[in-house]
Amino acid sequence: MQIAILAHEKFPDRAKTALGVLRYADYDVEAVLDRDSAGSRVQDHVSDVQDAPIVEGMDDVGDVDALLIGIAPIGGGFDESWREDVRTALERGCDVISGLHFFLAEDEEFAALAAENDCELWDVRKPHDELTVADGVAGDVDAEVILTVGTDCSVGKMTVSMELARDARDAGYDAAVIPTGQTGIMIEGWGNPIDRVVSDFTAGAVEEMILEKGDEHDYLFVEGQGSIVHPAYSAVTCGILHGSMADQLVLCHEAGKEAIHGYEDFELPSIQSYVDLYEDLAEPVADATITAGALNTSHLEDDEARQAVDEYAEELGAPASDVIRFGTDDLLEELLE
Amino acid sequence: MQIAILAHEKFPDRAKTALGVLRYADYDVEAVLDRDSAGSRVQDHVSDVQDAPIVEGMDDVGDVDALLIGIAPIGGGFDESWREDVRTALERGCDVISGLHFFLAEDEEFAALAAENDCELWDVRKPHDELTVADGVAGDVDAEVILTVGTDCSVGKMTVSMELARDARDAGYDAAVIPTGQTGIMIEGWGNPIDRVVSDFTAGAVEEMILEKGDEHDYLFVEGQGSIVHPAYSAVTCGILHGSMADQLVLCHEAGKEAIHGYEDFELPSIQSYVDLYEDLAEPVADATITAGALNTSHLEDDEARQAVDEYAEELGAPASDVIRFGTDDLLEELLE
Repeated sequence: MQIAILAHEKFPDRAKTALGVLRYADYDVEAVLDRDSAGSRVQDHVSDVQDAPIVEGMDDVGDVDALLIGIAPIGGGFDESWREDVRTALERGCDVISGLHFFLAEDEEFAALAAENDCELWDVRKPHDELTVADGVAGDVDAEVILTVGTDCSVGKMTVSMELARDARDAGYDAAVIPTGQTGIMIEGWGNPIDRVVSDFTAGAVEEMILEKGDEHDYLFVEGQGSIVHPAYSAVTCGILHGSMADQLVLCHEAGKEAIHGYEDFELPSIQSYVDLYEDLAEPVADATITAGALNTSHLEDDEARQAVDEYAEELGAPASDVIRFGTDDLLEELLE
Repeated sequence: MQIAILAHEKFPDRAKTALGVLRYADYDVEAVLDRDSAGSRVQDHVSDVQDAPIVEGMDDVGDVDALLIGIAPIGGGFDESWREDVRTALERGCDVISGLHFFLAEDEEFAALAAENDCELWDVRKPHDELTVADGVAGDVDAEVILTVGTDCSVGKMTVSMELARDARDAGYDAAVIPTGQTGIMIEGWGNPIDRVVSDFTAGAVEEMILEKGDEHDYLFVEGQGSIVHPAYSAVTCGILHGSMADQLVLCHEAGKEAIHGYEDFELPSIQSYVDLYEDLAEPVADATITAGALNTSHLEDDEARQAVDEYAEELGAPASDVIRFGTDDLLEELLE
């Protein structure tokens, strides 16, 4: 599928979804829309993702199947300066894919244009309707289920899941990702936004995805969310932990982080506390153990990063890596049997 | 407020909501509707709740302000054999209060009748619209926050919260209940059905209620839900634990229970494991300790019950009681300073 990615005024540093899609998705990205960087190319800014021209707007984009909204303003609303590009895409018969809190399908003009031009508005944050409570059977699937868990939000759980699954596939293993957040869903082209489901169905929504894929693959890498001690988001984390009935956990952390992002009054517990909490909480439902660690060292120099990863591995008593900086070999050797 | 309670064919043993309202709510119950027991009285069946005549249907009920649906079929749907009573209530200008999954306000006939007769359809399972994520500030309120937590669903958390709050008030303390489930909400006349909110807002919905009441009272008894190791419902439990930022926890258990109800493959961990899990999981967000226990011994003889409670207190290292059988004195002495 050929797509364009909208990232006005935010590419690349504030365009996490756009970067995730450029790095991991199977789409052919024909262009990135950013009126601030038009005329340059993706690889002028970021080296390790697929390249594409950066253009002013949809009028400068050739044939594509879909326009994907690759940024999100604070609050998740729709920025009216994007309307012309979305309108043009729909008029040309392109689908539009969005992970905004604001649902494009509920916008009258977009709904009418989509109907008129026979194209789809895919709001990935909208959970599907037939969810229900978990049956406690995710553990019955054939696949080994490997869940990324974290010490906080935004420490790299999505990235780690994607890197591990891709490298496992490259090494000849049959591995798939279970996407639970909007970027993961856009990359994989399916999934359920677990933070948007009814709270009673949190575990059930994860279980449903595990059951759907668990007998088709040998390894499932489940994208985790939040942290088990996050003052706001721990419910989602707990539901994913029990709903996935994971066999192995990969603890994701950012080097040097000491407090919960946005909740600075709350200090992070020790790494050992996280290990005990995740394992002890999982145990009555599924015997999951933390068998590897992933450390985000992006703000450190190379030699500091190496040392930080080594210390993290020692704290965990398990192999660790910064998967972007040092690759996934050490982790996959432990995770894949 | 004067009400009638609909409990057709299920009073009293399969009418948990009706019994809760009869036992704890401030409403004057004028009649219970149960076509199977019509002609008898509530106290012919249950001795420790307010009395009322049991009648065939709304035509046999005098002046009331509201009809409350006091039963729920499996699945939470609307039983069409109740339609005539709901219709009659609305035609007479009574509000109708329902905790069904099926929303009365979405029934065309009921919506039209309610509009016509200027009365309200209150679907208590429908969360209000302006929920958001928690700020991690429930701990800032003046009140001491006491949360009931459980080893499983249906072990008495709602009952224990209600008994403790009532007896504390009777002893002269300023105590209120924070209701989180449909029966609690019906009893208190306000609240938020935490199991129906968007999972990202689970903690936030609890925090909102704590902030609303926390500076008006000295003690808040928060109605807990589920269990932290429940394969389906743990997300809700975790969100309430962190969202309430409780000071004290009361661990509720049913004597002799060995497996999770409806999920019999999952054994209950030891009582000590529950204590450690709840306290360790709470700790990074709020320093909550289990200071008392409540044991449901309803299926035991008196002497067995006494022994079971004593053993439970010993396991917990804290005072314990069956609050229905042996009262709340020992617990309140510990919980209220």
